[in-house]
Amino acid sequence: MRVEYINPFVTSLKNTFQTMLNCDTKRGQVCLQDGSTSRHPVSGVIGLTGKAVGTVVLNLSENVALKAAATLLLTEMPSINDEVLDAVGELTNMVTGAAKAELEEYELKVSLPNVITGANHEIHFPSDVTPVCVPFETEWGKLTLEVGLAPVEEEAIV
Amino acid sequence: MRVEYINPFVTSLKNTFQTMLNCDTKRGQVCLQDGSTSRHPVSGVIGLTGKAVGTVVLNLSENVALKAAATLLLTEMPSINDEVLDAVGELTNMVTGAAKAELEEYELKVSLPNVITGANHEIHFPSDVTPVCVPFETEWGKLTLEVGLAPVEEEAIV
Repeated sequence: MRVEYINPFVTSLKNTFQTMLNCDTKRGQVCLQDGSTSRHPVSGVIGLTGKAVGTVVLNLSENVALKAAATLLLTEMPSINDEVLDAVGELTNMVTGAAKAELEEYELKVSLPNVITGANHEIHFPSDVTPVCVPFETEWGKLTLEVGLAPVEEEAIV
Repeated sequence: MRVEYINPFVTSLKNTFQTMLNCDTKRGQVCLQDGSTSRHPVSGVIGLTGKAVGTVVLNLSENVALKAAATLLLTEMPSINDEVLDAVGELTNMVTGAAKAELEEYELKVSLPNVITGANHEIHFPSDVTPVCVPFETEWGKLTLEVGLAPVEEEAIV
């Protein structure tokens, strides 16, 4: 699978933050991860299936998670609670859904968003899949988008 | 979706541990989680799509992860490394794959397995999905199987 598959996710993240959260994002350098990801304590995670299988991770600093949730929910969010976690899951879903539409040749379907918390959690990909990672800066703090996708052989699709 | 959807995963976990790892498992009481899961430090996570969407989590104590990987890889595994993480991902894939075959009416497809590590990581489900959780005891220690699945409305399948 081409590394360019990351571009629809980058565009989708920028657009989602701009239109849904009224938040500008400044994109950093794309990097390839060594298979273990997440530097921030809150990760929205969603699985993809279709002619490629993989995972999208939206790894957020606590402040980005709180401010994004507060904006979506129209109320202050002083600490991580179930509403914040649902909002992070929904944000991950929105970013993934819009990108999926741009990758229609892969006929992707999305699973349920889960949100991982824990100061030192790490999300590992299978060692034969190298996730592409894109850091972003926002007025609220930092976040990282990570996408690992592997093509599926036609005969292996069941 | 019926709570009975957990049964194929329980059977698959028992069979996979028995046949692939030669490890007996003793099942504890099924419980419903309040949306946040994981008590052990290593979680194999895999997304499902189809006529239901959801996530399967295999939450393992460190010793279960190490011994399962050592058995699959036919070599001692003194600490969590990339090979252990790949083995946990593959184990999650095997358990999910066999269960999927028993739930054919949902036409499930599996995403890529990810493995989450971190002593205090938590895996949250959307608050409208209640994951079913089944603890197991083995000679190597404890593990918990967690499955959260939500039916997809026909018209919502894209």
